[in-house]
Amino acid sequence: MEYFDSNPRPKQLDEHSEGAQAFIDQHAREHRRVALVTSGGTTVPLENQTVRFIDNFSAGTRGATSAEYFLEAGYAVIFLHRQFSLLPYSRHYSHTTNCFLDYMTHDERGAVVIDAEYRQQMADVLAQYTKAKRENTLLILPFTSVNEYLWYLRDLAILMQPLAANGLFYLAAAVSDFFVPADRMVEHKIQSSEEFNTKRQLSNGDDDNSNENLPAAHMEGKKLVIDLDPVPKFLKQLVDAWAPRSMIISFKLETDPSILSEKCQSALKKYAHHLVIGNLLRTRKHEVLMVSARSGEKWLRVPTDRRTKSVTGLTGNGAEPVPAADPIEIESLIIPEIKTLHSEVIAKGDPR
Amino acid sequence: MEYFDSNPRPKQLDEHSEGAQAFIDQHAREHRRVALVTSGGTTVPLENQTVRFIDNFSAGTRGATSAEYFLEAGYAVIFLHRQFSLLPYSRHYSHTTNCFLDYMTHDERGAVVIDAEYRQQMADVLAQYTKAKRENTLLILPFTSVNEYLWYLRDLAILMQPLAANGLFYLAAAVSDFFVPADRMVEHKIQSSEEFNTKRQLSNGDDDNSNENLPAAHMEGKKLVIDLDPVPKFLKQLVDAWAPRSMIISFKLETDPSILSEKCQSALKKYAHHLVIGNLLRTRKHEVLMVSARSGEKWLRVPTDRRTKSVTGLTGNGAEPVPAADPIEIESLIIPEIKTLHSEVIAKGDPR
Repeated sequence: MEYFDSNPRPKQLDEHSEGAQAFIDQHAREHRRVALVTSGGTTVPLENQTVRFIDNFSAGTRGATSAEYFLEAGYAVIFLHRQFSLLPYSRHYSHTTNCFLDYMTHDERGAVVIDAEYRQQMADVLAQYTKAKRENTLLILPFTSVNEYLWYLRDLAILMQPLAANGLFYLAAAVSDFFVPADRMVEHKIQSSEEFNTKRQLSNGDDDNSNENLPAAHMEGKKLVIDLDPVPKFLKQLVDAWAPRSMIISFKLETDPSILSEKCQSALKKYAHHLVIGNLLRTRKHEVLMVSARSGEKWLRVPTDRRTKSVTGLTGNGAEPVPAADPIEIESLIIPEIKTLHSEVIAKGDPR
Repeated sequence: MEYFDSNPRPKQLDEHSEGAQAFIDQHAREHRRVALVTSGGTTVPLENQTVRFIDNFSAGTRGATSAEYFLEAGYAVIFLHRQFSLLPYSRHYSHTTNCFLDYMTHDERGAVVIDAEYRQQMADVLAQYTKAKRENTLLILPFTSVNEYLWYLRDLAILMQPLAANGLFYLAAAVSDFFVPADRMVEHKIQSSEEFNTKRQLSNGDDDNSNENLPAAHMEGKKLVIDLDPVPKFLKQLVDAWAPRSMIISFKLETDPSILSEKCQSALKKYAHHLVIGNLLRTRKHEVLMVSARSGEKWLRVPTDRRTKSVTGLTGNGAEPVPAADPIEIESLIIPEIKTLHSEVIAKGDPR
């Protein structure tokens, strides 16, 4: 894939691949299924010394929650996540509205103790976290940019090939469709007043319509104009070349309900992998559309009275329903469904 | 300011302003200084139902750390921060490499306790957090988009006017210089294949060079092109109209050392406020340049052997020095310096 010839290999990839190799070897020996869960949004830096970047909305809730249910279902999990997005287990306490310090108090001798009200829940979460650490079933790897994501995904997929059908890809990360190629990225922060920009950064293109090697971001008068190249279709490569024997699940996040099903079907047709999980920004916490060649379309839904607080996207919009007293996370419905499909794929031998 | 006529007022602003009013009233009565600390990056959403956005790099470390030192110095703090960026106190445990679950263990009865090694530090942090809550000296307010930021800043500044010189603005947030005006924002996620985009979203402009009311993001062939308008110079408004009697401190983050001083001087000259704190992406954790009309330029630096782990920006670059055993946070140098300047401003009566 030409992409990897012209965009730089991340500095920590060798070290992380080595850790992943040991992790995969262990679970291959123990005949355990291994899920690569990707999570969070990728960035598209606009400068080499990055001050501004384009991002895809994702707190990492889907990935972090799913990773816990994969572990519960007996999988080992490689959690490839956007740095500082939510992580399995700690996600229960990471949000502003759920600061873990609010769960703590001092006892009579001034030592920190967990507030009685939260003690049992925190003990349960910590027990699961400790179990995953003890059994070495959770490997956590970070990425930030879409370039890092693509390099990690390829390396990990190739390392996972010996797992054959026991390997599973659960691609929940919100990966940018567009990026700035390395040779079109400026070095320094783009300045809003032109006097501080270097000539190179202000270069504005010729009239011949070729913008090869021109910076992807530049000033035009008082405006900042950015033009981005399409990210190569890595899912095609993953399915056909990097992980031909593994089960592969991709996601579609849309905002317009009228195109969701069509977009999922179109992805499935294009890449010929196993499953597309479609979801809408507004309802993603309580319903998803599972689309597979084998079983067609199937909605999974959390009953109205068992929903967690609904979240309405990046900008929020106030009025949120009261969360259920005993909420069901939709990932607790998704993962068992996938485990069953995965068993069928393994039984069949040839995944596709 | 025309901006506020054409860009929507955030839905939760009324409710938050009411809370801020009560907070400010209390501290005005008690003659306490009040610092508005802004923190984290602002987003520039590219769609109304936001999937993609432009962001400014900031984890919120500067703001969250500074807020703690302002509280320690006797200030009440309004912490206006990017949602999910670092917060005072919890920031000590929020990072991937510092997960608070790693600080905990189970005792012999299965209850959660803090690991002996970390017990004292966590007790100290919790004590400071509890004190701020008990004395009601910390008000935490979130924003996400640059539009929300601007609305909140104006409302809070006007609410703080009765504090007069006791009010202080510490503008550490990384605010975008560019944005998408409400009337140029598309509703739905921009699709990478043109067939799914509506006509409105694909509209490509006429030949008359006027792009008013044309969507800020559109496809040109396989490329995504984004053009952004300049954010109005809100600092000018803050200094002249919204907070004419308060002390105002702005920040400049640059990547190119050769322009830092000039950029700071130019901001000070343009806005005629009290202090510009300049910093470079690579060295911001251990040195800053303080630039004021009163005292000229002054570098504050943490000695080499007392630095916290240096961070090298969004994309990282591997090799980081070992942190000092007893590190000094640079904010512990910045805030006392500001407190002294602030006392001079208050003593002088007229701040400028």
